[in-house]
Amino acid sequence: MSDVDFAGPGGDLSATKPDTEEAVRGIAKRAKAASKQLAIATRARKDQLLAAMADALEAHADEIVAANSKDTAREEAGGMSAGLLDRLALDPARVKACADALREVAALPDPVGEVVRGNTLANGMRLTQVRVPMGVVGMIYEARPNVTVDAAGLAIKSGNAVILRGGSAAAESNQAIVKVLQNAVAAQGFDPDLIQSVDSYGRAGGVALMRARGLVDVLVPRGGHGLIQTVIAESSVPVIETGEGVVHVYVDKGADLAQAMNITMNAKTQRVGVCNALETLLVHRDVAGEFLPLALAALAEAGVVLHGDDATISLAPVGVEVIPATNRDWETEYLALELAIKVVDSLDDAIAHIDEYSTAHTDAIITDDVKAAERFIKEVDSAVVMVNASTRFTDGGQFGLGAEIGISTQKLHARGPMGLAELTTTKWILRGDGNVRP
Amino acid sequence: MSDVDFAGPGGDLSATKPDTEEAVRGIAKRAKAASKQLAIATRARKDQLLAAMADALEAHADEIVAANSKDTAREEAGGMSAGLLDRLALDPARVKACADALREVAALPDPVGEVVRGNTLANGMRLTQVRVPMGVVGMIYEARPNVTVDAAGLAIKSGNAVILRGGSAAAESNQAIVKVLQNAVAAQGFDPDLIQSVDSYGRAGGVALMRARGLVDVLVPRGGHGLIQTVIAESSVPVIETGEGVVHVYVDKGADLAQAMNITMNAKTQRVGVCNALETLLVHRDVAGEFLPLALAALAEAGVVLHGDDATISLAPVGVEVIPATNRDWETEYLALELAIKVVDSLDDAIAHIDEYSTAHTDAIITDDVKAAERFIKEVDSAVVMVNASTRFTDGGQFGLGAEIGISTQKLHARGPMGLAELTTTKWILRGDGNVRP
Repeated sequence: MSDVDFAGPGGDLSATKPDTEEAVRGIAKRAKAASKQLAIATRARKDQLLAAMADALEAHADEIVAANSKDTAREEAGGMSAGLLDRLALDPARVKACADALREVAALPDPVGEVVRGNTLANGMRLTQVRVPMGVVGMIYEARPNVTVDAAGLAIKSGNAVILRGGSAAAESNQAIVKVLQNAVAAQGFDPDLIQSVDSYGRAGGVALMRARGLVDVLVPRGGHGLIQTVIAESSVPVIETGEGVVHVYVDKGADLAQAMNITMNAKTQRVGVCNALETLLVHRDVAGEFLPLALAALAEAGVVLHGDDATISLAPVGVEVIPATNRDWETEYLALELAIKVVDSLDDAIAHIDEYSTAHTDAIITDDVKAAERFIKEVDSAVVMVNASTRFTDGGQFGLGAEIGISTQKLHARGPMGLAELTTTKWILRGDGNVRP
Repeated sequence: MSDVDFAGPGGDLSATKPDTEEAVRGIAKRAKAASKQLAIATRARKDQLLAAMADALEAHADEIVAANSKDTAREEAGGMSAGLLDRLALDPARVKACADALREVAALPDPVGEVVRGNTLANGMRLTQVRVPMGVVGMIYEARPNVTVDAAGLAIKSGNAVILRGGSAAAESNQAIVKVLQNAVAAQGFDPDLIQSVDSYGRAGGVALMRARGLVDVLVPRGGHGLIQTVIAESSVPVIETGEGVVHVYVDKGADLAQAMNITMNAKTQRVGVCNALETLLVHRDVAGEFLPLALAALAEAGVVLHGDDATISLAPVGVEVIPATNRDWETEYLALELAIKVVDSLDDAIAHIDEYSTAHTDAIITDDVKAAERFIKEVDSAVVMVNASTRFTDGGQFGLGAEIGISTQKLHARGPMGLAELTTTKWILRGDGNVRP
């Protein structure tokens, strides 16, 4: 994914103009004010609003597609890759898919008001901890107009206002979408400041958003390594780090090798360019001789570029090229039909390699050995640890959380796929009858 | 509370020396390595370790008290206030209290391994989300040696290594305590790097700790405004903001005024200098004439310095001085026998005042009117919202969470009193039988 707006050369991140900062703080204050009405709205009202937003997107699909054409024409002329252009492009069917995504969010249970814990204290006071909205959620992402709709929908459902920074490549598309959504919000009797964008302030707007601590409650960056690292470094607003996935599958000596083959192929090739796709395959030496020749042939047949250590290269069948792997390969998230492969001497070696190179997103072991599986589960410190399953299952939808705002690779607040509950915080409520502390 | 080490004039926070940064990163790496053994230790082993730490503190109480005498003598000569000196001082009874606190932590349930969510997916895979340790917890605090023991105990019980930065005023005490605890850890067969301090690196050590992102998983500052704001501004490690409490009690027109009086006195005077003590009293105009003359007299009798708006001043009985309040008073956490008082026209006015000035720690309404209570609960956006109870109940022990590492005033990860569970994160475990994504 490209980081054109934040991490490109010449991106002077300290160049926040004071007037931009003031303007963005104004946007955040209006968002906070608007959020108060939504925070106490009933689920029925929020679901009606989401349905109205979906209908509005479909009714204005032509305008949105027309705005999007300007973005794609400009970016194509500017040399954007085919893959990125495909993520950027909208047609009427894709606009309808965005609308349907909002309808699916409406159908999800409301996280707000859920009682997380509660009990009656020894002195008779009633204590409960309930889910409440965060307030204002900031999203910083890149050239994917569908994220504009998803983020707005998830924020509204969880009772939050949202401030969007979608990147210049999708500026026209995002502006058109935000306008349509704001009008729908106003028509439903809510404050249109619930959905705002800082795109018109360019890079400085994004930086100002990162510095609006106290006004923005959480910032979720979605995109490539450069964007996420920039947001972490620059933000005084609490950030949830998402998505980077140097994902491992370890084929243990106790593996069912037919399952290992299916899972390896699925994890690498079922979809390319996603954070839960396989990036490094580790194979126990005892089964490498049987497994790797077949696996390397199948991967090469599927068009996967292979990087391997010496042991892997020595097992490559005739006609299958394996490029010598360097340390750089072990730390690379290819996001492409490309794979690093290493033969390891033991489960310990596999865990040590993962410990050193994994981004702690998703790591899987393929084994029928209970002790090996349990050790892997206990000792691999990643957001998702799997046994005998494809890493492609790390997904809010697959996990039954409903729509997903991102996959957290940090340990604070949320870890792994983030659904609606992760866009809420909690409030303690204590009800007494004149109680004082002795 | 003083911020001598971080926020004092001349505190050049950008002055991290490269060799200090390298040394602190080394400490953090050793902490991370040590944490892996603890993360998979059984509860029984951890509880034995905590008991051994408690016994060691008692056995070495003389050394600890002697080291502490050097700190108190130096600080007393340097002009430290009596209140701060009292927090700094240790005697054998206080060392025993620290040891007993460790034994209480040992008796608490182990948060590690708790299954938070779980179900069987449509394709038969078993999904569970379980609590696991964070890894390495950093604590930055001030001149309170008992926090050294508490932080170490809570970290160990929750399976984490801890890195301490306790401030120069308590340097001798902390060094003695850490040495005793490290020896106990080693004697129990664990890596003594589970408990480390960066105090010997001075201010630069604290700054390096804030910058050790990826090695330190979470940083908890405890102390005054200056320290906490400095950590928030400087840290690239995720921070949990704790403790600032501009705490409100609102006496509604529907209040039981006898309860209102008890709660006001308890919240302000039961203990001074704590974050859950009352700082601003709001009184509905309809009951101010009956309530305030009695309340002002009782507060003045208890030695409370009073700041009030014009309406409050006009209701002061003869002989009770009320200083005219300024905006500055509404935003001040006195942490002393001092109180700001305002008469408001309505529940809306009370909520608006709290919205503007509260640090969102704890706010209470005193009322027998259900509708007023429910609106206050819903609309006041604070970590703890109370009805007819003293704000002094905001406390991990009072809430039944056991020992408390701090009270979070932020919305991410933890809000309100933080117990052992808040020092953990979660891990998703997915167990399949060769499943691949269609």
